[in-house]
Amino acid sequence: MVRQDDADMTGADEQPAIDLYRFVSELFPINRSLTGAGVRETLKAVARHCDLSVHEVATGTPVLDWEVPREWNISSGTIKTLDGRCLVDFAENNLHVLGYSRPIHEVISRSELAQHVHTLPDQPDLIPYRTGYYADDWGFCLRHDLWQTMNDESYRVDIDSEIGPGSMTYGEFFVPGATNEEVLLSCHVCHPSLANDNLSGISIMTALAMRQSKRKRRLGYRFLFLPATIGAITWLARNEKATDRIKHGLVLTCLGDSGPFHYKQSRKGDVIDRAVAHVLKHEGHAHEIMPFNPYGYDERQFCSPGFDLPVGCLMRGVHGTFPEYHTSADNLDFVRPEALEQSYRSLAKLLDVLDGARTYCRVDGRGEPQLGRRGLYRAIAGQREAGGATQMDLLWFLNLADGHHSLLDMAIRADVPFARLQSAARLALDAALVREITS
Amino acid sequence: MVRQDDADMTGADEQPAIDLYRFVSELFPINRSLTGAGVRETLKAVARHCDLSVHEVATGTPVLDWEVPREWNISSGTIKTLDGRCLVDFAENNLHVLGYSRPIHEVISRSELAQHVHTLPDQPDLIPYRTGYYADDWGFCLRHDLWQTMNDESYRVDIDSEIGPGSMTYGEFFVPGATNEEVLLSCHVCHPSLANDNLSGISIMTALAMRQSKRKRRLGYRFLFLPATIGAITWLARNEKATDRIKHGLVLTCLGDSGPFHYKQSRKGDVIDRAVAHVLKHEGHAHEIMPFNPYGYDERQFCSPGFDLPVGCLMRGVHGTFPEYHTSADNLDFVRPEALEQSYRSLAKLLDVLDGARTYCRVDGRGEPQLGRRGLYRAIAGQREAGGATQMDLLWFLNLADGHHSLLDMAIRADVPFARLQSAARLALDAALVREITS
Amino acid sequence: MVRQDDADMTGADEQPAIDLYRFVSELFPINRSLTGAGVRETLKAVARHCDLSVHEVATGTPVLDWEVPREWNISSGTIKTLDGRCLVDFAENNLHVLGYSRPIHEVISRSELAQHVHTLPDQPDLIPYRTGYYADDWGFCLRHDLWQTMNDESYRVDIDSEIGPGSMTYGEFFVPGATNEEVLLSCHVCHPSLANDNLSGISIMTALAMRQSKRKRRLGYRFLFLPATIGAITWLARNEKATDRIKHGLVLTCLGDSGPFHYKQSRKGDVIDRAVAHVLKHEGHAHEIMPFNPYGYDERQFCSPGFDLPVGCLMRGVHGTFPEYHTSADNLDFVRPEALEQSYRSLAKLLDVLDGARTYCRVDGRGEPQLGRRGLYRAIAGQREAGGATQMDLLWFLNLADGHHSLLDMAIRADVPFARLQSAARLALDAALVREITS
Repeated sequence: MVRQDDADMTGADEQPAIDLYRFVSELFPINRSLTGAGVRETLKAVARHCDLSVHEVATGTPVLDWEVPREWNISSGTIKTLDGRCLVDFAENNLHVLGYSRPIHEVISRSELAQHVHTLPDQPDLIPYRTGYYADDWGFCLRHDLWQTMNDESYRVDIDSEIGPGSMTYGEFFVPGATNEEVLLSCHVCHPSLANDNLSGISIMTALAMRQSKRKRRLGYRFLFLPATIGAITWLARNEKATDRIKHGLVLTCLGDSGPFHYKQSRKGDVIDRAVAHVLKHEGHAHEIMPFNPYGYDERQFCSPGFDLPVGCLMRGVHGTFPEYHTSADNLDFVRPEALEQSYRSLAKLLDVLDGARTYCRVDGRGEPQLGRRGLYRAIAGQREAGGATQMDLLWFLNLADGHHSLLDMAIRADVPFARLQSAARLALDAALVREITS
Repeated sequence: MVRQDDADMTGADEQPAIDLYRFVSELFPINRSLTGAGVRETLKAVARHCDLSVHEVATGTPVLDWEVPREWNISSGTIKTLDGRCLVDFAENNLHVLGYSRPIHEVISRSELAQHVHTLPDQPDLIPYRTGYYADDWGFCLRHDLWQTMNDESYRVDIDSEIGPGSMTYGEFFVPGATNEEVLLSCHVCHPSLANDNLSGISIMTALAMRQSKRKRRLGYRFLFLPATIGAITWLARNEKATDRIKHGLVLTCLGDSGPFHYKQSRKGDVIDRAVAHVLKHEGHAHEIMPFNPYGYDERQFCSPGFDLPVGCLMRGVHGTFPEYHTSADNLDFVRPEALEQSYRSLAKLLDVLDGARTYCRVDGRGEPQLGRRGLYRAIAGQREAGGATQMDLLWFLNLADGHHSLLDMAIRADVPFARLQSAARLALDAALVREITS
Repeated sequence: MVRQDDADMTGADEQPAIDLYRFVSELFPINRSLTGAGVRETLKAVARHCDLSVHEVATGTPVLDWEVPREWNISSGTIKTLDGRCLVDFAENNLHVLGYSRPIHEVISRSELAQHVHTLPDQPDLIPYRTGYYADDWGFCLRHDLWQTMNDESYRVDIDSEIGPGSMTYGEFFVPGATNEEVLLSCHVCHPSLANDNLSGISIMTALAMRQSKRKRRLGYRFLFLPATIGAITWLARNEKATDRIKHGLVLTCLGDSGPFHYKQSRKGDVIDRAVAHVLKHEGHAHEIMPFNPYGYDERQFCSPGFDLPVGCLMRGVHGTFPEYHTSADNLDFVRPEALEQSYRSLAKLLDVLDGARTYCRVDGRGEPQLGRRGLYRAIAGQREAGGATQMDLLWFLNLADGHHSLLDMAIRADVPFARLQSAARLALDAALVREITS
């Protein structure tokens, strides 16, 4: 039986070990894509905070139905007037070049350029984010306002990039627990300068990795920093046998904006869904629960047939529904320090719920135990000032400590915050009224 | 594995092979009852359109708890004044004589006649429909208005009928499928000139029988044209062992009026209930789902203990709740050609859903398959103009193609019309991403 | 197969065998506590109406996690002014002395007395009810109004009581049934002059015990008159092996006030919950269904882990929520004869439902039986005047008599009063259409 220290069980009001917003800001300028130097630089920054394993998987490696793509790197990209005025520059904003653009150095007509230009006519002051991973293409993403003013007959376009054999890079950090059961946490690391849709997840997950490695743990925690889709597929392909250890999982994304939380349920419906709903409800956060669908982030891989892992997705803003999504407006103004910290604290509480959702069995025979002679009424009165268990919480705990209800099941049935039933459990353990059932 | 041609899978916007309303009109004048010449004539008309087997079961044959009744035939029935004026004439409307009336040729007092006269005081201009199958009785059904004017002391009543040993007649048409699994469709053929409550079902079922016999089929289709109650009981008694092949069933009645659809669920709750609800919802028809009860049409026999088959009942107007029910107003004005055709089309779509509710399993390993290299994004774009699958439909299909979800389960979870998931299935089959699971 | 007489099945409109209110009045003056003479006197009064077994369990006997407490008896208790004026007298109202007060004979200062005085500042004209079962204490319960006027420097306090080895007393009455299955009914007998919270349960349960012993019974009925908590624990400890016979159970309390019924569900969710909800609904009584929680009356013992019996709790007023609760206002004015009788009748009907919830199976083969040739249409018409089964009730019965539905299941699905399906069952039994399934 694993017991946590009291200090470990009091929840998650603590500050993250890193300044979340500062870490987002540090990573913001880096040009990330599915592969290449930007991903490596990002993972190196994460590795300064936790003992991250960085994996390189060679181009062409078969992974399930896919294969690892060629590596892309880019050093510059510009559109210039023929008289040398630079109108569009990758160095200013890395969204300007279509992801996976092949190199080009040419003077071309405006009409030909138009075939390679992406703008947002409805948001004319924003640069869109576009990629062409598996197309052999090149392109530029521009403010529509600017494009409207570009009426020369020809322009000089230059992209210094390389696409070729190399490798795909992903990061993994595993904190073992006292049992073989694991929680999987995953974020994507393949978007360039987008703050909410990418960096919020990386920053919060780094802080959670630091947090979990310093706590006593029943469960193991596996933190995956993955290029979207192909990264998840690669990880699944290389760890197929280990996936049955994953008891709960969560994809983290878009957690830095100031909107309400959105939780997308797992395909199969599992403990993770009940745990997230419980935490969001009792934290008092505005939130919406959304049913599973096979679109979105890497939960669609983790929940694919054959694996069908119990993995949901926690977001604030939902991809495709906020105006800043996949534009230059998803920047350091859009993401707020307070929102990042609130997301972190809710997730820390969630991990405490998952880790603390132990199952207990009464050892003192049947019926209701006598609380008075064990000093438990007094103990409860003492806790009350500290927000601990009430007498009713203790009665719920003792009533449901039958080996068939986890602490989370109990908290949901009693409809009180998890931490209060956890306090009740501690009182009962101290009084030797229950023992933990280990699965 | 059975594959349908594309043409077979595009749904049911086609016209019925017969003019439904004309067929109702053709059958309307015939005097039907539980037994007798009228049923035979009706089934002969049906047999002109499909290869119907007509069964004769001798009077007195024991069938479960019942026995086949004596045969009734009638050639005329009148009430006349003593000076020979004909007031009520079976030849004018076959509702005028109580079903199974024994012969009578007498002059009787008005007060004695009153014991044998049925009217509708609240609908004084309508003739009621009444029968006395198992009573040894005779009677007349009249407009209450007329009865009010009949103040003579005596009247002459004549009924030329025969009740005696003979047989009961029912029709059966079976279209075999590629598997042993069957869909049972049933309507009643024992009501005289009632258009909605009888003929709408006969007409639509005839057209459906013609339709199904011309299509590639996974399932077999069994069409039963039965005298109500005793016909169903007789069929069950003679086919007891075959009933475990029936995977879905539907009783059809009152499908020619212009009201909303009503679907009464099966006793056990089964795929048929979900399929009908899905089709009615996505067809956009006003409809109401009603729980099973042990009254109504022959679903009460099919859902009786011992059998408990998955059989529901589809109606527009519900027996006993519309003013025309079991009166002379349930006539060729009450039934509308458009309503008949709409009912037919919804049922055709339903049969396509039942037949197409196959189960698939991914053959390409785990995770999400790569759509791009198989040209599936392009294929979807091509379909979109034809109302085919969207990318999301294809993702739902591939996500749920785990051998545990039928196409109907998928369509319900995705909440999109069945045909779109069927299109997605076809794309995935063509790309060799899935194979069908045969049960 | 056990058949009840018709007279036994017609429900529960009968009068209770004793005057419920008079019995409450008779028991009201007695001073009850967990142990002692008052409990014995109360059980002796109950035993005049049924063959009650009275059990004495010695102080110190270990029972599960508890032990039987010392016995407490009291003969007098007063607070007097030093000049001999009696201000507070146990002889006037037995609530005046804290339960389990130790003896005291002293003159003490007002300020010291204040440590031992309990009042209700918000209900200044009422005496509170308080106990100190397991504390070694003494005390008085007073009207706050009176306490406010007591400004002398010192008072003389006298309590003539004894606490010491002795025994705890409880009563049990068992009426065997035709089967081994039992219904447990329980009330508490440990409160002094409180009419609703104690005596209403004792009075109604006595009448129910008399009623059940005079009826033919499928089930056995076990009536427990218990000191709360320790009585239930003691009974459970001494009857551990017999508890698996208990198929339904109910704790009765606060059934004499005029408020709506409240039913608290069992922990496990079982037939008792459906039966009570069915009866309260079809009796047309205002009522509320409350989910289980581990607080309240002895249902918390019966539903504790290890036992987890199917026991709910029926109340009108809910403990702790009505202003008279645990005060001198819970008296003979608060309890109403009509309310007691209505509660009795609903419970009598409930017991008839539990006893009558037999399971039947059709013996006449499959399909719907022919009602006409068995005279069942005529039989139903005859019953209708007596509020018996309708034709629809009989069809429901015959449809669900498949060996898998109890009569209660049928009544709930048909949504009609239980007695009507019971009448239908009797018709079908008389017609030899069904046989009872004995478990």
